[in-house]
Amino acid sequence: MTQLGFNNKNLLSKRIQSVPESFIRNILKVATQADVISFAGGLPSADLFPIDGLEAACSKVLQTNGKKALQYSSSEGDSELRSWISQRYKEKQGLDISPKNILITNGSQQALDLLGKVLLDEGDPIAIENPGYLGAIQSFSLYQPTMHTIAIDDNGLDVGQLSSILNSYEPKLLYTVPNFQNPTGISYSQQNREDVAELIAQSNTLLLQDDPYGELRFSGEQKSNFYELLPEQTLLLGSFSKVVVPSFRLGWIVAPDWLMKPLVIAKQAADLHTNYFSQQVISQYLNDNALDDHIERITAFYSQQKQVMMDAIEQYFPADAKVAESEGGMFLWVTLPTGISAMALFDKAIKEKVAFVPGNPFYVGDNIEENTLRLSYVTVDEASILEGIKRLARCIML
Amino acid sequence: MTQLGFNNKNLLSKRIQSVPESFIRNILKVATQADVISFAGGLPSADLFPIDGLEAACSKVLQTNGKKALQYSSSEGDSELRSWISQRYKEKQGLDISPKNILITNGSQQALDLLGKVLLDEGDPIAIENPGYLGAIQSFSLYQPTMHTIAIDDNGLDVGQLSSILNSYEPKLLYTVPNFQNPTGISYSQQNREDVAELIAQSNTLLLQDDPYGELRFSGEQKSNFYELLPEQTLLLGSFSKVVVPSFRLGWIVAPDWLMKPLVIAKQAADLHTNYFSQQVISQYLNDNALDDHIERITAFYSQQKQVMMDAIEQYFPADAKVAESEGGMFLWVTLPTGISAMALFDKAIKEKVAFVPGNPFYVGDNIEENTLRLSYVTVDEASILEGIKRLARCIML
Repeated sequence: MTQLGFNNKNLLSKRIQSVPESFIRNILKVATQADVISFAGGLPSADLFPIDGLEAACSKVLQTNGKKALQYSSSEGDSELRSWISQRYKEKQGLDISPKNILITNGSQQALDLLGKVLLDEGDPIAIENPGYLGAIQSFSLYQPTMHTIAIDDNGLDVGQLSSILNSYEPKLLYTVPNFQNPTGISYSQQNREDVAELIAQSNTLLLQDDPYGELRFSGEQKSNFYELLPEQTLLLGSFSKVVVPSFRLGWIVAPDWLMKPLVIAKQAADLHTNYFSQQVISQYLNDNALDDHIERITAFYSQQKQVMMDAIEQYFPADAKVAESEGGMFLWVTLPTGISAMALFDKAIKEKVAFVPGNPFYVGDNIEENTLRLSYVTVDEASILEGIKRLARCIML
Repeated sequence: MTQLGFNNKNLLSKRIQSVPESFIRNILKVATQADVISFAGGLPSADLFPIDGLEAACSKVLQTNGKKALQYSSSEGDSELRSWISQRYKEKQGLDISPKNILITNGSQQALDLLGKVLLDEGDPIAIENPGYLGAIQSFSLYQPTMHTIAIDDNGLDVGQLSSILNSYEPKLLYTVPNFQNPTGISYSQQNREDVAELIAQSNTLLLQDDPYGELRFSGEQKSNFYELLPEQTLLLGSFSKVVVPSFRLGWIVAPDWLMKPLVIAKQAADLHTNYFSQQVISQYLNDNALDDHIERITAFYSQQKQVMMDAIEQYFPADAKVAESEGGMFLWVTLPTGISAMALFDKAIKEKVAFVPGNPFYVGDNIEENTLRLSYVTVDEASILEGIKRLARCIML
């Protein structure tokens, strides 16, 4: 059969062409070469995965409840898992959140996609942190919003910029990662949260608190959840990826009643429901194991790794390199002396077999601080952290 | 903190408001009441799930490869699973499909969403079967295309309507379920496939062959895959939901090179990747078990159930009720005598504790055949099939 004139040129949507390429994806390809010491990844440490506990949970679920656990299930998610999450918000943060306001998603990444679907039409204004989480920018881009960026520093969001953007553009959504932010590792101060909440309360904007790292605190005091300050306008995202395992792709969104129904419709259209077997397995695992003990092992290990990296940076990096203050999470954010380009440094570093992510791709728009970089300290052993930082220091001095 | 003037009225997107409500979802709520004999579901039979095989696979994966299986993974999907799928296309249908043209998705439902993302802008024309699979209509609706419907009958797509729609609207996509279609159970004839392919070849339209039931053949001969007739313009969807288990949410899309990269970007933005643990488990299961033997057990069981339902309909339904010819799958499509409304019948039937899905919600637009209904024969035991059909017959006669 001859195919006359088929031409794929005009078939792709404008929406997909508006999504930025993931520069980090390309970096990670280089960084995962076997002999490279990589501080580039965003992965949790696999050495801490609770393999035995999950194996026991798999067997228990299949033996006691196999037919149900393997069948189609509800778009909202497993009711026991939703109750567990509700309970945990109460215990850890004193928040009253009903299970019926929790939707289980394929990692919190999918929650971003679903929110884009139900909230954003082409051109709708949203506000995001700068620098910020690229996955959120990518997800939202598909719905072609207008993005307004708000600078962050060690203290949190720039309140002046926020106020001006709220007044000028009335964004539908403000995307925040107030605890141990990706890429900077910083947390919003208590005062900053209250100031942000005060401004949002005067607006018609929803505040989205993404919180994949919130339970990984090494030091300092827990600050207010935005939900506590601003219950009617706050959406929460959560995830088991950093505290149990990522491959299950289990996250959730907390949303008010008026938003739950459209979110469930969007979820149904997206993939009917989240992998139900894995929901049951993690629910069983959480039932049979103390998550707090597991998280304590993770934070003890990560905070030790962080200290090793901080000490090495202190010892080997130029004295005027700055590390953003961080009380937990997985990343350090380094600001090199002015005039050093982290993008150029990356090329030198790869030749020395050490990798990191330059700050550049985390910025949207023009206000890029070229001399910044993100270092992950969780998947590299202590000796390699030391060696990697030494190599990186040599490259900086070159 | 006072919240002045927050009002959610204008926050929802137009896109989400353009998605039709799932009438079937409401039907299923009624149908799953404990004492109702339900032919309404679209679920496979849980009695046939390979629970022991999957439990063994879970343990093997976790014991031999736990750290990798529980970590983040690639957006494209597990390479072994993609190779297995490629191999199966070769063995079962003689198709040469490279693993690199296969993207693993959260069930084939997600493939619909990803295709909507990468192909459809607001107003773009697409063509769909009428009646057709509601999940596809729901998925595509989020991207606000203009939908053109093409009637199907026992022979397949109405070629006249197809030709006219191709000429008048140049749709980007034609959505088809050529094997054991949902809701009608019919398959396109060999001649119809060739006629459809011939028309598409003259167009700039992509043909999407969704095929969740294709391996569930009870009788008759396998027909050509559209990929064989029209390789450059055909996209294939596949799923493990009906041949292994649905709760893992594992499906895939076969796409040409030019479409793979945007699909992978869309997948990454949607949820980073599909549950990797479940990909590994099913890969292990497929490696250690003969899927063909398992499918033979399913088809033996389903075809027996189908026969019981056909016989009962023959015996109890009015002589002028028609059942669409079907050689496999999970559904029978009944056309009642003219003048009987299946929607009205549903209300009577629920009072008699028997449920089905009226044809009405499967139609888009005005050409609704009100006297049609879909019956699933796979999850109800033989005695209940007989009893349910008797009750339904009584309601028809009322």
